[in-house]
Amino acid sequence: MTPIELVPVGRARTPYLTVDACPFQPEADGPECTIEVHEPYRAGLLGLEAATHVDVVLWFEQARRDGPLRQTSSMHPEWGEVGAFALRTPHRPNPLGISRVAIVRVEATGVVVRGLDCLDGTPVVDLKRA
Amino acid sequence: MTPIELVPVGRARTPYLTVDACPFQPEADGPECTIEVHEPYRAGLLGLEAATHVDVVLWFEQARRDGPLRQTSSMHPEWGEVGAFALRTPHRPNPLGISRVAIVRVEATGVVVRGLDCLDGTPVVDLKRA
Repeated sequence: MTPIELVPVGRARTPYLTVDACPFQPEADGPECTIEVHEPYRAGLLGLEAATHVDVVLWFEQARRDGPLRQTSSMHPEWGEVGAFALRTPHRPNPLGISRVAIVRVEATGVVVRGLDCLDGTPVVDLKRA
Repeated sequence: MTPIELVPVGRARTPYLTVDACPFQPEADGPECTIEVHEPYRAGLLGLEAATHVDVVLWFEQARRDGPLRQTSSMHPEWGEVGAFALRTPHRPNPLGISRVAIVRVEATGVVVRGLDCLDGTPVVDLKRA
């Protein structure tokens, strides 16, 4: 099989500069955040303003992808040790994140959304109408 | 930035052998399908049986990733030409799919789900408790 290689199509701008400051999950009442879309991909935004929500696919570049497959959730420590596929932790074989967030407005250079749950500067690899 | 390279963690088994046979979206009343998880990643399944749904992240290896960013949806032709980010088409800069499906049962070697919307044999790059 051809190797699977992704290209960043944009970058998330959020108020979160440390992992400790970051919410565990998207927040419906969180702050406005921006997905800056890199220039070659901006034509892909056409028509997104008709949607109420978007799935943002993130690449957690600082995550440990070779860590243990069984972990204890920071959000649900009462679950005990469970597998990475039973969690939404960034620490997983392919550290992709999926955040479904409300669209505030679509601009020429990106999308303003509400309550994203990632570090400032996180690469974005896809956006999908939700 | 380090290049973003994904590893397949499994493979989808569905009844769909051609794109024309494939549903456009997951089907709540669709047939049982199986996510076969490759051996090194099976420990990641522990505890997934406690969830009702899972987000399956697919790699559409047959999609055109260098195609036009503006397309007409097969599912919604009435929208006219819109951007790839305003659709869930497989033809996008990074041809990832996200399908939220109901879990039928978790087995030692994978997960049986209902109503997946991809070709038989599609590589799976992540599973996340929904």
